Amino acid sequence: MVVNLDRLFTKRAKSLKASEIRELLKITRIPGMISLAGGLPNPEAFPVDVIHKCIEKVFKNHILSALQYGTTEGLPLLREVLALRMKSNKSINCVPHQLLITNGAQQGLSLIGYTFLEPGDTYISTAPTYLGALQAFSAFEANCEAIPLTGDGIDIDALRRNIERLLRTEVIPKFIYTVPTFQNPAGVTISLKHRKELLDVASEYDLLIIEDDPYGELIFEGKPVPPIKSLDTKDRVIYLSTFSKILAPGFRLGWTIASEEIINKFVLRKQSSDLCTNVFSQYVAYEYISGGYLDKQIEKIKKLYKGKRDIMLKALKQYLPKEAKYTIPKGGMFLWVTLPKRVNTRIMFQKAVANKVAYVVGDAFYPEGGHYNSMRLNFSYSSDKDIVEGIRRLSEVIKEELARTTEQESLLAQGV
Amino acid sequence: MVVNLDRLFTKRAKSLKASEIRELLKITRIPGMISLAGGLPNPEAFPVDVIHKCIEKVFKNHILSALQYGTTEGLPLLREVLALRMKSNKSINCVPHQLLITNGAQQGLSLIGYTFLEPGDTYISTAPTYLGALQAFSAFEANCEAIPLTGDGIDIDALRRNIERLLRTEVIPKFIYTVPTFQNPAGVTISLKHRKELLDVASEYDLLIIEDDPYGELIFEGKPVPPIKSLDTKDRVIYLSTFSKILAPGFRLGWTIASEEIINKFVLRKQSSDLCTNVFSQYVAYEYISGGYLDKQIEKIKKLYKGKRDIMLKALKQYLPKEAKYTIPKGGMFLWVTLPKRVNTRIMFQKAVANKVAYVVGDAFYPEGGHYNSMRLNFSYSSDKDIVEGIRRLSEVIKEELARTTEQESLLAQGV
Repeated sequence: MVVNLDRLFTKRAKSLKASEIRELLKITRIPGMISLAGGLPNPEAFPVDVIHKCIEKVFKNHILSALQYGTTEGLPLLREVLALRMKSNKSINCVPHQLLITNGAQQGLSLIGYTFLEPGDTYISTAPTYLGALQAFSAFEANCEAIPLTGDGIDIDALRRNIERLLRTEVIPKFIYTVPTFQNPAGVTISLKHRKELLDVASEYDLLIIEDDPYGELIFEGKPVPPIKSLDTKDRVIYLSTFSKILAPGFRLGWTIASEEIINKFVLRKQSSDLCTNVFSQYVAYEYISGGYLDKQIEKIKKLYKGKRDIMLKALKQYLPKEAKYTIPKGGMFLWVTLPKRVNTRIMFQKAVANKVAYVVGDAFYPEGGHYNSMRLNFSYSSDKDIVEGIRRLSEVIKEELARTTEQESLLAQGV
Repeated sequence: MVVNLDRLFTKRAKSLKASEIRELLKITRIPGMISLAGGLPNPEAFPVDVIHKCIEKVFKNHILSALQYGTTEGLPLLREVLALRMKSNKSINCVPHQLLITNGAQQGLSLIGYTFLEPGDTYISTAPTYLGALQAFSAFEANCEAIPLTGDGIDIDALRRNIERLLRTEVIPKFIYTVPTFQNPAGVTISLKHRKELLDVASEYDLLIIEDDPYGELIFEGKPVPPIKSLDTKDRVIYLSTFSKILAPGFRLGWTIASEEIINKFVLRKQSSDLCTNVFSQYVAYEYISGGYLDKQIEKIKKLYKGKRDIMLKALKQYLPKEAKYTIPKGGMFLWVTLPKRVNTRIMFQKAVANKVAYVVGDAFYPEGGHYNSMRLNFSYSSDKDIVEGIRRLSEVIKEELARTTEQESLLAQGV
């Protein structure tokens, strides 16, 4: 007899589905394709020599500890320098015991899912939103209520209405998830005013806020908006960040800041899920921060990405038809294009691929789908030349699609 | 209002408890303490120079890929060399697609829990058993049925009786978990005959077997017993192993071998839980295997640990009272001491600590508790001198405890 797996898989495992976006991204490997679809940091900016130096320091100073098991909470040295940096750079008050080192910020999201989401539970997310968070939370069979992002903030009235509606049906939303700064996917930043209002609403209904902040350091212009966590005096905010965008994603290092009570739960869960985070890499990150390399590196990345953003914005201005709107992110790695409602970027995708350019369809970032007239573009990864050529190709496809759909509409209007 | 977490935590998160053993291990940090309690590889055996060479190769050949995000499944180069090694060294037939790189073998256990265990589900484990597995599975609110290990195997009749009893109450046990080779905690190895019988029983009832094999390479004497996975023609066995004992635990690298259908589920779950395993470390491991360093290193570790086992066995023979029995492991890192039933190693623990020696109480390794007259001793970590002195101190405590309990018993027999 062969194993009958269907009898053995859990309900949650059965409902796991391959990410459609991941399948789409495979297309981007076709030779000649210019992909504005991915979300990768630019390897040009990886501080290879600095990492090499830091590794030499690890060999010199800590190698036997770096190769041994470590504590689940994370390397004490690293937790300390990170807690100090959070205070000095982000005005986030935290002691090392409130800071957990994770296997990328994604593990923090997964720990949140494990700790707060029962099957059928509901959480709230601003939308569009980070796909990986949707996956981390839906892995625990939870439902998402989406709150629209507006130009510089959240539709607070919609948030309040949504919570009230949920409470009337005796559903307590577990938390509000948001990427408030240079957001993936739309590149927008929630204003200070809206951050305060968000915290007020969370306080009023006694909810947690999950502040996912992978891009906050990558600011190109203007004054940084304080993290929601820095405004939080009641341990209401769980804050996540990562070394993936300021050192290298290959080291899989992130951190989560929360009250000790919550961190303790995360530690217990992390222990059974992987014992501890890669110790060697934690020492490298410690040498990287304590050696004073981080700030210089952030400047280097910002310069590179700002240049690429400007190139993309210039190309969009030059090539994109006037009917298309786009966000102008002040930092991060992404911007968001909105086309007239009659265009479906999902239908248009095959044509774009045929014209050797790829993007991510906008509806993927909405928990409830829809918004088919939008798309995400990444400006961090491609070469300057490819960004210009990519936008030119994309604009061609958009123009054709606008013309085709106009014709279709006028035919429909004529009753044809 | 301050956050009312009790209202927000999941049931599973509420039931997470700090590992008592972890607390016990804190005691072992007292100065002067000889700890035979831990389960750490000996850092003396870490191949520091070889790792340094491998890292230089990574910088020379793969650095930009090593610092970037990688695929969830694991580095293709590493999956390939591991699949080849599994075939040549373990007679396990697998293609790279059936092999998933994990963040330590512990993550493999956690993926199994997520994929197969609903709240209230039952699995079977040989007992005593690895604590981390109990934690990984109980994190998903499952129940464990324990099957006793006998000298060189499993009590197959008890296994069969247990399964029949479960099926009568309409409980389908999801899998049978076992560490068949140089087991943690008891150091015993299941014979080939019993491995075959275990596979027969699993086949008869169409169950999965989880074969956890972190110690299989660390064989001191005799012929290696084939892994259960090598006898498996029906994809019934999920096999786990790790670099923690043959390279360095600090890199957090393990692997899981199973049918593609199961690996696909694990990949989907892993993606939402941490995107991918540390890519840099995967390249280091790849260079380590493909550079031909692994076999030499295994010989070095075996020599070191065999020496330490022999020293511990000699000390046990010299100091331990005759009433105490112990296993003679042919590999691995642990052995198991059984005292007369009237001795409770948990009560004795405080006395041992006072005498500056520590062990792990045996009942911790039994899902159902009990077996208070047993303990686990680790021989891989301590210095040769400390092993001898540790066993001497421990034997003192055991002798006192035997005398005290004999006196108590004879008083009881006299009706005092």
